[in-house]
Amino acid sequence: MSMPFRLGIAGLGTVGAGVVKIVQTHGAALAAKAGRAVEITAVSARNRGLDRGVDLSGYGWEDDATRLAARDDVDCVVEVIGGSDGPAKALVSQALAARKHVVTANKALIAHHGQALAEAAEAAGTALRFEAAVAGGIPVLKGLGEGLAANQISRVFGVLNGTCNYILSEMEATKAAYSDVLADAQRLGYAEADPTFDVGGIDAAHKLAILAALAFGTRIDFDGVVTEGIDRITLADIETARDMGYSIKLLGLARMHPTGLEQRVRPCMVSETTPIGALKGVTNAVVVEGDFVGKCIFTGPGAGAGPTASAILADVLDVARGNLTPAFGRPAASLTAASRLEHGDEHSPYYLRFMLADQPGALASIASALGTAGVSIHRMRQYGQGDPVPVVIETHDARRDAIDAALGAIAALPVSMVAPVAIRIEEV
Amino acid sequence: MSMPFRLGIAGLGTVGAGVVKIVQTHGAALAAKAGRAVEITAVSARNRGLDRGVDLSGYGWEDDATRLAARDDVDCVVEVIGGSDGPAKALVSQALAARKHVVTANKALIAHHGQALAEAAEAAGTALRFEAAVAGGIPVLKGLGEGLAANQISRVFGVLNGTCNYILSEMEATKAAYSDVLADAQRLGYAEADPTFDVGGIDAAHKLAILAALAFGTRIDFDGVVTEGIDRITLADIETARDMGYSIKLLGLARMHPTGLEQRVRPCMVSETTPIGALKGVTNAVVVEGDFVGKCIFTGPGAGAGPTASAILADVLDVARGNLTPAFGRPAASLTAASRLEHGDEHSPYYLRFMLADQPGALASIASALGTAGVSIHRMRQYGQGDPVPVVIETHDARRDAIDAALGAIAALPVSMVAPVAIRIEEV
Repeated sequence: MSMPFRLGIAGLGTVGAGVVKIVQTHGAALAAKAGRAVEITAVSARNRGLDRGVDLSGYGWEDDATRLAARDDVDCVVEVIGGSDGPAKALVSQALAARKHVVTANKALIAHHGQALAEAAEAAGTALRFEAAVAGGIPVLKGLGEGLAANQISRVFGVLNGTCNYILSEMEATKAAYSDVLADAQRLGYAEADPTFDVGGIDAAHKLAILAALAFGTRIDFDGVVTEGIDRITLADIETARDMGYSIKLLGLARMHPTGLEQRVRPCMVSETTPIGALKGVTNAVVVEGDFVGKCIFTGPGAGAGPTASAILADVLDVARGNLTPAFGRPAASLTAASRLEHGDEHSPYYLRFMLADQPGALASIASALGTAGVSIHRMRQYGQGDPVPVVIETHDARRDAIDAALGAIAALPVSMVAPVAIRIEEV
Repeated sequence: MSMPFRLGIAGLGTVGAGVVKIVQTHGAALAAKAGRAVEITAVSARNRGLDRGVDLSGYGWEDDATRLAARDDVDCVVEVIGGSDGPAKALVSQALAARKHVVTANKALIAHHGQALAEAAEAAGTALRFEAAVAGGIPVLKGLGEGLAANQISRVFGVLNGTCNYILSEMEATKAAYSDVLADAQRLGYAEADPTFDVGGIDAAHKLAILAALAFGTRIDFDGVVTEGIDRITLADIETARDMGYSIKLLGLARMHPTGLEQRVRPCMVSETTPIGALKGVTNAVVVEGDFVGKCIFTGPGAGAGPTASAILADVLDVARGNLTPAFGRPAASLTAASRLEHGDEHSPYYLRFMLADQPGALASIASALGTAGVSIHRMRQYGQGDPVPVVIETHDARRDAIDAALGAIAALPVSMVAPVAIRIEEV
C-alpha cells in the first residue's frame, strides 16, 4: 500500500461536514478502493467554535482557507466554500500553483473560471475535478466525460435545479400559485431565503455551461447561456400544458448546430409520459444523446449534504488512484471556442398563449399574424368563455425569430388584451 | 503525445464491426481524449471473406483469435467473441498472461471466471474491463464502481434484459399472449431463435452477479443467483397487476442482509408510476442505493452494436489514459466470499393468485391457511364469477418460507383448482 492520500477541507458547512463523515465512517472501504489510505489532515472554516456534528479534533485547523494550499501535509484540497470569486478562487488558484490536486463542488467557480483553472491544473500536472458541481450526487460528469466518451454528442439536457422542479411539480400537483409554493419550498429548506439563483435559472446555467464544455469539447462559455427562470410561469400555463399532454420543466439544454452552440436554460413543455416529464420533486435528471449509444439518462438527488459529499469523495478516490483525466476530458488547449447560436436561429415547436377580446375576428387576426410570420399551426384550443378568452396554439417547428415577429405583431393588435406567452416544446 | 494505443479485436460480429467503426470515424476525438492515438492493428474472426460493412484492409488478420495475445503490436485485446469458455476464455487468459490489457463485452465469461481473471490481470499489472457486459451502452459499472464508490451500497437492482422487458411491456400494451409476443420479438430481432438465455433469466443473472460483486466488494458468485424467467407469466397476472397499480418486470436484484447476500432474478411487481415500472421496450435501467447518495438510476440502451461498442471504447479510453482501476473496484484479493441468503429468509410483500372452486367457504379456507403460516393480508380482490374464480391477495411483508408453506397447504386443498402463483412485490 502506498502513502496515504491527505485531504485539506475548505468549508465546513453541511457538505464539508458530510465529506468528513464519509471519510470517518467508510475509511477502510475508501482505502481498499483507492489502494491507499484516504485521510483528512487539515480543515478550514470561518468559525472554529461551531458544533458541526463531526469530531474535528484530530485535524489541523486553518482560519484562512488559502493556508491549506501551503501545507506540506495536504495532497488534495477539497473546496466547498462556494462563490465564483473571493476566497474560493484564491484557494483553488493557490492550491494548483502549489501542485496540489483540487476537488470542488463549486459550479459558479468552474462556470466562470473553468478554462483558466483547467490550464493551471495541467501546467501543474495535478487534477481539477468537480463532479459535485453538476447534478449533486449523480455521477453524470463521469458518465458523460468518460462513460460516453466514444460518442459524438448531439444534445445534452436535463432538469438541473431541484428547487425549480419542486416548485413546478408542486404547482402541477396542488394547483397552488407560484408564490405560495415558493414560500413552502423556503419553509422546507428546498429554496434559499433569496431564491434568485435557483428560480432565475442561474444555478442551472452554471451547470449547463459545464456539461456543454464536457459534451462538445468547447471552452466553457457561461456568458453564452441564454437564461430564463420560472418566475413568470402561471398555474394557467401549467394546467393548459397538462391538458395538452405536457409538463412544464426548467430545462438546461445544450445542442451543437452547424451554425453554433446553443446553450439555453428555459421553462419548456415536455411530454408528461417521458422520464423527464414524469420527474417530480427535487430530483435531477440529465439526458445525453450520442451517435453510437443513443440516449442515456442519469437520475438522482441533485443536492444535499450526503449526495454532494458522495460526488466529492468519488473525485477524491479517482485522484488518489492516480486517474488524472483532464478537467474537461481532453487537454485544455484543445478545447475550441464555439460560436454561439443566434437567438433567432433557435427552432422548435412552440406553445403560444393569447388572451383575446371576445369579439368576432379575434382568432382570425391571430392566425393571420402567425401566417404572415411563417409560423404554421399544429393544433389550437380555445378555453371557455369570459373576456378576455384564453387561446392556446401549438405550432409546428418554427424559427425563434418568426415566433418573435408574430408575437410582436399580435401584441400590438387591439384584440390582444395581455402580452402573449411563448414556451418552447422540447422533444425529450 | 505518447505512443499509440494499439488494439487487437477478436470477433467481428455486429459489435466488433461497431468498435471498428467508432475508431475509424472518431479517431481524432478519441486521440484527444486518450492523450494518444487509438489504433487497430489486428483483427480476428472465423470467416475472413465476409463483408462486415467496414474496411479491414489496413489491419493484420488472425484466423486464430488467441494469436492476438502473442502479437507485439497489440497493447489491448478487445474480446467480443462471447461464451463463458472456449476461445474467449483462452484468448483472455493468454492475453493477460502476456501482460496485455483486456476489454470485453462477455458477461458469461466474467460471471463464471471473473475472480480468476481479475487476479490474473492484477498479477500482470494490466487492466481487465467489462463495462459493455452489463446494461449495454449505459455506463453503470463506472457509475457504481467509481461514481458512487464512496457509498456503502444497500441494494442494486434493475431491468437488465431488454428482450424480457420488451415482451412484458408488449403483453401489457397489446394484451397478447406470451408466445405471440415472443414470436414477434424474434421477427424483430429483439429475441434470439433460441430465447432461453434471455427469457429464462440467465443473461440477467450474469449481469446481476457482476453488479453485486462491484456493489458489495464480494467475490463474484454466479451460482448464488436464484433465477426464474418470464415464461410462466400470464396475461391474467399482467392485467391483475395493472388493476392493482403494478407492472410486472423481470428484476435482477442484489441486497446485502446481515445473514447473507441476496441475489435474485425474478419477475416482480413494481409500482407502475415509478421509473422502473414505467420502463417500456428494450431499454434497461439500473438503480443503485447508497447510504450517502440515496438513489441513482441509470437508464439507456441495454443492447445493440452501437451502444455496446460505445461501452467498449469507454473502457479502451480509460485504459489508454492509464486509469487501471481494478476489475471489481478494489484488489481482487480483498473481495470477500459472502454467504448466500437462504431462500426462506427472503422477505417482501407478495402477490398471490388462486383459482378457486366457486363454493361456500373457499375463500375462508385460503385465508385460514395464510393465517396459519403467519402471512398477513394487505388487500384482496376476487374477480367476476366463473368456475374456477380468480382470487388475488396482496400480502404484507412476509418471509418466503411462510409463503411457500401457505402455498403448499393451499395447493393441497380441494377448492384450489390450479397451482397458486406467487410474485414478489418490490419497492422500487
